[in-house]
Amino acid sequence: MTRRLARQLDEQDPLADYLDRFLPGDDSVRAYLDGNSLGRPPKATVAAIEDCLHKQWGTRLIRSWTEEWLALPTVVGDELGTTVLRAAPGQTVVADSTTVCLYKLLRAACALRPGRTEIVTDVHNFPTDRYVVEGIASELGMTLRWLEPPIRGGITPELLAPVLGAQTAVVTFSHVAYQSAAIADMAGITARVHDVGALVVWDLCHSAGAIPVDLDTARADFAVGCTYKYLNGGPGAPAFLYVNHAVQERFHQPIQGWIGRADPFAMAQGYLPAPGVSRALSGTPNVLGLIAVREGVRLVTEAGIERIRAKGIALTELAVRLTEQHLAPLGFTLGSPRRAEDRGNHITICHPNGKALAEQLTAAGILVDFREPDGIRFGCSPLTTRFSDLPVAVEALADLASATG
Amino acid sequence: MTRRLARQLDEQDPLADYLDRFLPGDDSVRAYLDGNSLGRPPKATVAAIEDCLHKQWGTRLIRSWTEEWLALPTVVGDELGTTVLRAAPGQTVVADSTTVCLYKLLRAACALRPGRTEIVTDVHNFPTDRYVVEGIASELGMTLRWLEPPIRGGITPELLAPVLGAQTAVVTFSHVAYQSAAIADMAGITARVHDVGALVVWDLCHSAGAIPVDLDTARADFAVGCTYKYLNGGPGAPAFLYVNHAVQERFHQPIQGWIGRADPFAMAQGYLPAPGVSRALSGTPNVLGLIAVREGVRLVTEAGIERIRAKGIALTELAVRLTEQHLAPLGFTLGSPRRAEDRGNHITICHPNGKALAEQLTAAGILVDFREPDGIRFGCSPLTTRFSDLPVAVEALADLASATG
Repeated sequence: MTRRLARQLDEQDPLADYLDRFLPGDDSVRAYLDGNSLGRPPKATVAAIEDCLHKQWGTRLIRSWTEEWLALPTVVGDELGTTVLRAAPGQTVVADSTTVCLYKLLRAACALRPGRTEIVTDVHNFPTDRYVVEGIASELGMTLRWLEPPIRGGITPELLAPVLGAQTAVVTFSHVAYQSAAIADMAGITARVHDVGALVVWDLCHSAGAIPVDLDTARADFAVGCTYKYLNGGPGAPAFLYVNHAVQERFHQPIQGWIGRADPFAMAQGYLPAPGVSRALSGTPNVLGLIAVREGVRLVTEAGIERIRAKGIALTELAVRLTEQHLAPLGFTLGSPRRAEDRGNHITICHPNGKALAEQLTAAGILVDFREPDGIRFGCSPLTTRFSDLPVAVEALADLASATG
Repeated sequence: MTRRLARQLDEQDPLADYLDRFLPGDDSVRAYLDGNSLGRPPKATVAAIEDCLHKQWGTRLIRSWTEEWLALPTVVGDELGTTVLRAAPGQTVVADSTTVCLYKLLRAACALRPGRTEIVTDVHNFPTDRYVVEGIASELGMTLRWLEPPIRGGITPELLAPVLGAQTAVVTFSHVAYQSAAIADMAGITARVHDVGALVVWDLCHSAGAIPVDLDTARADFAVGCTYKYLNGGPGAPAFLYVNHAVQERFHQPIQGWIGRADPFAMAQGYLPAPGVSRALSGTPNVLGLIAVREGVRLVTEAGIERIRAKGIALTELAVRLTEQHLAPLGFTLGSPRRAEDRGNHITICHPNGKALAEQLTAAGILVDFREPDGIRFGCSPLTTRFSDLPVAVEALADLASATG
């Protein structure tokens, strides 16, 4: 019954054909529900990397730096920014890792609010975000104010009152929480942060390519995100960062490198920041990674973020209904918001024995991941996840829980 | 006559066959003398990347993180460290860009010398090194002491006396100068730096894979370097960094990320540095880049750094002799040390019209690069440069200079 419904949904799915745009994998994988952690490889990416290896690197050699490569951080940044993030050109670059980008932007944001002594984040933020913030608070002698939102709910503007004030320099949150998938109210929170004269850095790792993001309209100051989840850029592909035009002119980040300098090949004495968002760059660009990100962005752009989001909602709705029907009676609880509009494109299913169950599911070819303390995540990546994957996964999980219960 | 000599040298060259281990390029390239800036693609790298795309990423998917990828920064770091840098295991990782690695190590070094107020570098250091140092001096309120060595000579221990003292916290130099190729005396300089109680960070960009480096014996504290020059890791491949065991326990770098934390997948509250050199890591590893670096390191290891260096000396000796015979009469001067043991594996040939001549050479399929103010660099990358490439380049340069002179 459920499998038939899922097959019908697959047949009606306007994005169903996109699965063929990715490498097929092999028979060991019965269902891939971890595209929220590592997206699958697009065929176009494989072709673009081979082209880069053979033609750009192999034949054009050093000439490719000026012909193609040096422009990639800003060119791919704009391709990503203008389509996936709704950011006007000239505000987004692709470079470094999310962690390094966060470090740069948070340091730059603190420098824009001299004299203020507090940084705000939340205890459920992704680990690297928390660690970066701790390090910066320590090195700058600032105080870290920890918000403690409900673990299964999102961060709302109303929650902020106790932690915001005249001493707040910078606030940083994830747009979509990595555990619960709860969506934070980007525009509402940004407005509250601005009300006290502070700046905000958004982490879009779990939203970029999954749900609509509207940085300019939300008047976000800064944002970062990774490209290897819903953007399918590949393992460790470079991250992106966004610096709103409104703060670019006074923007200064601490890792002063040659690629962020005006006229880098003058190799002149004295650092002079490049015009615009390019000053956020530091070292030599990761070319293979940039080429992979570009292809991932093109696929998302072609499919359209609205259609991607619509399918993401339909997938997670089916996953939630199946969880309620088949898993709740076995002691599982939903670790994500119940309302579709409140969550991103994964759901978390909690069980006291979650870690062992996730390992058993994976061993059985149903690839999911586990997040402490008790959450099994079902990632629904709309370009590659089929509705039919969900009953397969839920039935297998129910069988495992029954067998070990 | 010269061409015949060069052909004979090619015939006797024990490394001649290595050229076949790289992609061949096409007929537009008459000679590639820029392997000191971007090494050519090894065929094994192309195969390894295709394997990663299809098998590790495409089929194993998320499982590859634990099966293969998470270990790469330290595994490839040790492969590079133990062979190319003569560093005992557990001191080298591959990550980030040279610029970001430099930032981390210089900040960590300054933190190990609290109360000291000075950083030393030289005006001929590579631009990104100078800019990073300037940024750190500014953010920490330290004084930057600039050494001004002769542009065509190396940095010697004797030159250091005026800039070293009880206030020196950290000293950073390039092992091989990017303009002149002059080799700095690593062991001698390190000893002088230690004599005043300071620490040293070596930049090995132009020496790793080109000349013997002996970090442990020199008692170097820290080192960084890129992998896309003589290590043939590809455009923007990740950099490496070295932290001597002697300073690891107290080592703390400012970009606290999840990959540098003890037990990262606990995703626990509070940053706790990982044991050993892994604490130098920050964000998610660049997998394709790491796989490319590994293949580049394997080729250098197989060929042997002593044989590579011997051919590097023979190549640059021929280049110097041809310059003296054919180019000196046309107004060119040697911008590199005359004695082979004093220079790395490139030479710089200076001419008032150098920039235009370098562009014309490149347009004619003889790929070189130009460095301000007047230097044409002939990079001699021993695994891919033929002796026969040198008369071709020198004759073409002489013809161009005669025509425009």
